[in-house]
Amino acid sequence: MKTDNTKNVLLIAQKAKEASRRLALLSAIDKNNALIKMARTLIDNQDLIIRENEKDIIAAKKQNYPKALIERLVLNEKRIKEMSNCLLDTAKIKDPIGKVLAAYKRPNGLVIKKISVPIGVIGIIYESRPNVASDCIGLCLKSGNSVILKGGKEAFYSNKAIFKILQDCLNKTKVPSDCVQMISSDNRKELNHLLKLSQYVDLIVPRGGEGLIKFVAENSLIPVVKHYKGVCHTYVSDKANIKMAEKICYNAKVQRPGVCNAMETLLVHKNIAKKFLPNMIKCFQAAKVELRGSALAMKLIEGIDKKATEADWYAEYLDLILAVKVVNNTDEAINHINKYGSNHSDTIVTKDKKEAQKFLDQVDSACVYWNASTRFTDGYEFGFGAEVGISTDKIHVRGPMGLEGLTTYKYEIYGKGQIRQ
Amino acid sequence: MKTDNTKNVLLIAQKAKEASRRLALLSAIDKNNALIKMARTLIDNQDLIIRENEKDIIAAKKQNYPKALIERLVLNEKRIKEMSNCLLDTAKIKDPIGKVLAAYKRPNGLVIKKISVPIGVIGIIYESRPNVASDCIGLCLKSGNSVILKGGKEAFYSNKAIFKILQDCLNKTKVPSDCVQMISSDNRKELNHLLKLSQYVDLIVPRGGEGLIKFVAENSLIPVVKHYKGVCHTYVSDKANIKMAEKICYNAKVQRPGVCNAMETLLVHKNIAKKFLPNMIKCFQAAKVELRGSALAMKLIEGIDKKATEADWYAEYLDLILAVKVVNNTDEAINHINKYGSNHSDTIVTKDKKEAQKFLDQVDSACVYWNASTRFTDGYEFGFGAEVGISTDKIHVRGPMGLEGLTTYKYEIYGKGQIRQ
Repeated sequence: MKTDNTKNVLLIAQKAKEASRRLALLSAIDKNNALIKMARTLIDNQDLIIRENEKDIIAAKKQNYPKALIERLVLNEKRIKEMSNCLLDTAKIKDPIGKVLAAYKRPNGLVIKKISVPIGVIGIIYESRPNVASDCIGLCLKSGNSVILKGGKEAFYSNKAIFKILQDCLNKTKVPSDCVQMISSDNRKELNHLLKLSQYVDLIVPRGGEGLIKFVAENSLIPVVKHYKGVCHTYVSDKANIKMAEKICYNAKVQRPGVCNAMETLLVHKNIAKKFLPNMIKCFQAAKVELRGSALAMKLIEGIDKKATEADWYAEYLDLILAVKVVNNTDEAINHINKYGSNHSDTIVTKDKKEAQKFLDQVDSACVYWNASTRFTDGYEFGFGAEVGISTDKIHVRGPMGLEGLTTYKYEIYGKGQIRQ
Repeated sequence: MKTDNTKNVLLIAQKAKEASRRLALLSAIDKNNALIKMARTLIDNQDLIIRENEKDIIAAKKQNYPKALIERLVLNEKRIKEMSNCLLDTAKIKDPIGKVLAAYKRPNGLVIKKISVPIGVIGIIYESRPNVASDCIGLCLKSGNSVILKGGKEAFYSNKAIFKILQDCLNKTKVPSDCVQMISSDNRKELNHLLKLSQYVDLIVPRGGEGLIKFVAENSLIPVVKHYKGVCHTYVSDKANIKMAEKICYNAKVQRPGVCNAMETLLVHKNIAKKFLPNMIKCFQAAKVELRGSALAMKLIEGIDKKATEADWYAEYLDLILAVKVVNNTDEAINHINKYGSNHSDTIVTKDKKEAQKFLDQVDSACVYWNASTRFTDGYEFGFGAEVGISTDKIHVRGPMGLEGLTTYKYEIYGKGQIRQ
């Protein structure tokens, strides 16, 4: 599989940069036509994609990869249809480029316009799910950016097939085919080289496990928008509607435990713990959720499986495991979240508006909820369309990263010969 | 001068983070009152500041620092008055925090609000000019951020005096004095340690020479907004008003050659070169500007001092030196700027609207001008008030970085018990 070397990586980055300048000037119609054509091409080539995907599945099984990972790797007709639909949906979104974000006249007569423009070249570093390739190609092209993909070795054949089909398709459109590039090596040498090419690549978005993201963050000279972990909390206040709290907690933990916006820690006010927790625990037990409790929770309530350690408060289980802590007041809940959380998504269940606003103001996370499940942190649920990822950073983009997160701006200044005094 | 060690740096960062949570909740009035009090304190203590500054000046002279650097170091009554006024101006700007940037209701009834919030803790790494300390403290506090300052050793006593006076002053206000921190070591060990503390510091802004900025960019695990160089261009089209072009070029080069938005390279269309350049060169010669020309410029025109080398096209002279290139058309000018420029500020002089728009669209710089001097790229000139710096990056903030660049946002989501289906 070793087909790339660092010289190739440089060439790929240079071609992507050069093509990005032409892509940036295309009309929304030209970009959308390309997206629609790409969506069709995926369906037309689904047999080929599934065949190549099977090679990855066989290799993964041979290497005894975890079942969940293999499940994420699989491409079938349904999933290819979803990939195709994602491209069609992206075509339908309003073009994010050329928007006048601000326009004003200065006392000296200069007219200053702030205009949304593409960033340039985006590097997407991802693991497993091969649909990321087509989703991200679509989002980057729509926002006028070239994209360099670097997938994981476990999806080598699938990634390569999707990439080749979509890049070929671009030859029949006005989008330069060099706008889409892939590094298909199986080691981190080429990745490390890519991360140094700040002259050609403008932004890196890593999507994957903590190890990959740490590697990217520590080695990149290019700005990185990342998402480390989703350690999401639900705080059930003593002023909560208990029925609502049960529904929200169950949804946040059980509906899809393997995703980043699922609840990992439940915080409960001590005055409501005895009323709320016993039935809640029964529901969790029925769903086979393992519970790990704080000392106070263990003391007050029966049915908690084991005592939580300090590590549990930091843990992103991505599984049917839940840490439960009984707190003395809202301040303790907020401080716990700001200390142990990952600045992702947290929610309070309460009937008290003032308490809710305090929580919304003071919890330092991208998405803070009042009386709703944390599971809504998602580009589609926010109305952005598909997302490149969810940023737990505070710089450039925070929370769901849709098309707007793939744009920057420039100032266009219109004068009549003005000079500085 | 070695008073800090890495343990102290950690402590400083932790205190700044902790205080930032309290600062983020203060009202605009509380923050503005603190700024006004700080402005007064600077004036009240100007004798002390000038005395401490003299120690730096004496040390700089002993070490034979360049005259220009010593000039930048000097603090006198006039400059302290300017520092004080900058704080007062900052107090007058509209509070950038708590703005509703977007608000909408989803089909499931969830109300999503995007609200501007402080970033948290900002590290400002700077060299020479000690006024940066008070300007940046003011901008960070106004935007609800804690600030950690790390000045250069050449302004050790000045920085320390300004910092101490302003931090003490905060004890008489509602702003926690821990919001303002300084690392006053004379080496890069502590800086390097600070750059790793991504748990506590949210953004690093380096201000200084290329060496410092390169060091910060290469060693930081914290996001960096930076400004490498200002290699700014003026392109005089064959459709330019020659009188206007002369005025703009002279202003962009001569009015203040030592700043980042001064012109470093002049591009001239070949069809206007013989009409425009001879008189322009005379003006530059009168101002003692050294001219370095492209082969074609040397061939067409007399009076250019010497031939430009490849290195000249990349050069940020910050001095009375100008590279001059004659180009065949607008495309060549645009390509030259995108290849050799620094994505800072570039201008076209032309009467042709279509040509101007092409230049505005295709030049990949933070600020692109039509018929105006590049010297206007500046927070005050843009109407932002004081600036933290000018970003040549594309991520988070581009061009003059005022208060808005010191904010991020969070999503507040208001539900009525919604769960994800």
